[in-house]
Amino acid sequence: MPAKSMDELVSLCKRRGFVFPSSDIYGGLQGLYDYGPLGVELKNNLKAAWWRAMVHDRDDVEGLDAALLTHRQVLRHSGHEQTFTDPLVDCRQCKSRWRADQIGDACPACGAKDLTEPRPFNLMFRTNVGPVDDGSAFAYLRPETAQGIFTNFKNVVDATARRPPFGIAQIGKAFRNEITPRNFVFRTREFEQMELEFFVAPGEDEAWHRRWLEARLDWWEAQGVPRSALSVYEVPADELAHYAKATFDLMYRYPHGVEELEGIANRTDFDLGAHSKNAADLNLTAEVTENTESTARLAIQDTATGEWRVPFVIEPSAGVDRGLLAIINEAFEQEQLPNGSQRTVLRLKPHLAPIKAAVLPLKRNHEGIVAKARAIKRQLQGLGLGRILYEHTGNIGKGYRRHDEVGTPMCVTVDFQTLEGDDTVTVRDRDSMAQVRVPVQALESHMRGALAEG
Amino acid sequence: MPAKSMDELVSLCKRRGFVFPSSDIYGGLQGLYDYGPLGVELKNNLKAAWWRAMVHDRDDVEGLDAALLTHRQVLRHSGHEQTFTDPLVDCRQCKSRWRADQIGDACPACGAKDLTEPRPFNLMFRTNVGPVDDGSAFAYLRPETAQGIFTNFKNVVDATARRPPFGIAQIGKAFRNEITPRNFVFRTREFEQMELEFFVAPGEDEAWHRRWLEARLDWWEAQGVPRSALSVYEVPADELAHYAKATFDLMYRYPHGVEELEGIANRTDFDLGAHSKNAADLNLTAEVTENTESTARLAIQDTATGEWRVPFVIEPSAGVDRGLLAIINEAFEQEQLPNGSQRTVLRLKPHLAPIKAAVLPLKRNHEGIVAKARAIKRQLQGLGLGRILYEHTGNIGKGYRRHDEVGTPMCVTVDFQTLEGDDTVTVRDRDSMAQVRVPVQALESHMRGALAEG
Repeated sequence: MPAKSMDELVSLCKRRGFVFPSSDIYGGLQGLYDYGPLGVELKNNLKAAWWRAMVHDRDDVEGLDAALLTHRQVLRHSGHEQTFTDPLVDCRQCKSRWRADQIGDACPACGAKDLTEPRPFNLMFRTNVGPVDDGSAFAYLRPETAQGIFTNFKNVVDATARRPPFGIAQIGKAFRNEITPRNFVFRTREFEQMELEFFVAPGEDEAWHRRWLEARLDWWEAQGVPRSALSVYEVPADELAHYAKATFDLMYRYPHGVEELEGIANRTDFDLGAHSKNAADLNLTAEVTENTESTARLAIQDTATGEWRVPFVIEPSAGVDRGLLAIINEAFEQEQLPNGSQRTVLRLKPHLAPIKAAVLPLKRNHEGIVAKARAIKRQLQGLGLGRILYEHTGNIGKGYRRHDEVGTPMCVTVDFQTLEGDDTVTVRDRDSMAQVRVPVQALESHMRGALAEG
Repeated sequence: MPAKSMDELVSLCKRRGFVFPSSDIYGGLQGLYDYGPLGVELKNNLKAAWWRAMVHDRDDVEGLDAALLTHRQVLRHSGHEQTFTDPLVDCRQCKSRWRADQIGDACPACGAKDLTEPRPFNLMFRTNVGPVDDGSAFAYLRPETAQGIFTNFKNVVDATARRPPFGIAQIGKAFRNEITPRNFVFRTREFEQMELEFFVAPGEDEAWHRRWLEARLDWWEAQGVPRSALSVYEVPADELAHYAKATFDLMYRYPHGVEELEGIANRTDFDLGAHSKNAADLNLTAEVTENTESTARLAIQDTATGEWRVPFVIEPSAGVDRGLLAIINEAFEQEQLPNGSQRTVLRLKPHLAPIKAAVLPLKRNHEGIVAKARAIKRQLQGLGLGRILYEHTGNIGKGYRRHDEVGTPMCVTVDFQTLEGDDTVTVRDRDSMAQVRVPVQALESHMRGALAEG
């Protein structure tokens, strides 16, 4: 059951330490957010789940982590310098600036209808690099992680001897100077992407494109975003990006509207071709401009014929921050309890939960109970399953509710019976709120069972 | 036994896919590197080990992940706008620029002695943010992760109810526009930091400072950088950064010389004080300038007296890329074998190894062997211990040497005996090169044992 409004999510995220506005104490910087203690764990868990599924669990994908500062020539030949723009208008009255396709014919600030004609505004951030500051030496902050994969294509092939079909996966920051960032972490100026560039033989691209669409829908379902909450939008030909032959957008119903969670594009042989020297010799299907700066041919040589062939690229490209917002929205529930009270519960999949288990001593000042609780914390932490919190507040009921609200799958309470009786603890389940006594020596297997993925 | 030269490390790193020069196909961008398929796994493993030790295994540290783009006021009040500079000189003959403290009295490019007087060059990258491009709206790329922790101090305290002693940990990118980047990934313009800001009561700072020094030396030892390879440099008073009362630098003997791997600073109450409004009321020991931009008081209120107190900060700050270079250097060995041949082996700690195990079919075209090898790969991958590689080259001897060179702790070979005989496989150990037959059903526990940390 999704949240009723974005405001509820934003409030929970700030109050409980998932997401804070960035540079908050100086009034913030529009379109930038910081992830707090629980947000960073949730984000790390989401990225790890993607990396496991896309790299470790497969036999045909390699990983990469390229620099954020990117050579100007990379983004010239990728087409970004020319085309990565939004239409910008000025209000001639109050001098404010807007994205033309997001407003009507009047300025949202002052109401004047005196707007300039739209002109293209490039979304890339640039910065001077090196000690000479005359504008000649600059780099871009990458607007997508993909280009770092294409420019390393030959390096990866040489180091791993891969041949298509195979992919290169990357998780990392990207930057877009949005004219009007909005909707919390949905549209920001600094964000994180999880991108796979999957290289296939021409002719096999359409089948792989459909295969990746299915794989990605399955993966989101395993993260708690069910298929019923997603729709697949096949982008019409006249709306496709300059590099794409076909694109499926996975559309999620966010609190602010239905918007893109992930795009899965067939980028053809455009990118590898565009970054290759002597592209005219490569029989590309894509139209690329001549590249006299590149020193490489990003292609695979057929061992039988000696011919060079440029693979096609299928690209599943997901947003980490957008994914996190969808996952929190799906997990968030304000539940009416039989006794008439209400609780907030975040029904996160256990592998995503920021805290896997909380260990609570019944009395915070009882030496024996505290020592036992700390020992259990260390023991469970040693399993390497994620963060286990020693919860020292000393109020069990409040502790349970606090952990419901942040999605902790189980709470372990140490009490007098643990010490004096049968060496059992109370394990309380987040979803059912059921409490059972579990022998301390069975806690490990109980926990492995409760946290198992899927 | 460390490598003989940086060139050997650079060559291994490129050839086997640990580190590539960034934007390589366009001639590269000085001081920027990309991490390849093995580099990203090693880096992720190193960061995960730090996070486990600093956040999960402790009960007094919270995590954070702040934006890289940083509000100008943050870096004004931190002192970076004023003091984060290197001395720059111009050669009047050939117009090249140099860091004054790294050259003699003659230009290294043309030999001329006609140099300008040194002047301060600020190392921060800046970029325009938002649609107005008149220089009024810019942000910095953060030069250290620390400031994002200080500016979120109140947010974290409010969300977690922490009281000193406690810490906030962060891993992430930082950027410095070095005049002359050098020595591979040691001094780059874009790099990654692992920083802890640990907040303590004034008066307890010196004891905590020593405690963190010991903890960090122990941690590096567990990563394969032994204490004997490190020296502790206590920075003299006249060389201390503007915020520091005392600093211990952990100095490692890199191939290019003895240089800083990690700094552990006592930053006093400078940072929290500098970012607070009405700092004059806070009885700071540090000298800070008045801050009329901040909206917050970064202090803890004493519940008994009502008095506000600003904690002192102990900061262990380590470089990910520098750490990785030290770890590879320590692990790298060219070993003479009894039979007169030589092998290259990377004796990485198993928890850091990019590939935990390789599974090799004796015959790459034998259906039964291939199917069995793939099944074992999936089974071991399911343990969640890191990347398991299905190695399809079909040459066992070469496979072992290739995996020695990248530090894979164990190789599992599936042969005819596996299928037709006793369901055992050959497990070959990287360090001893010993080969033993292990029943397939005992592989999991064998592997858990072989990869256990420490």
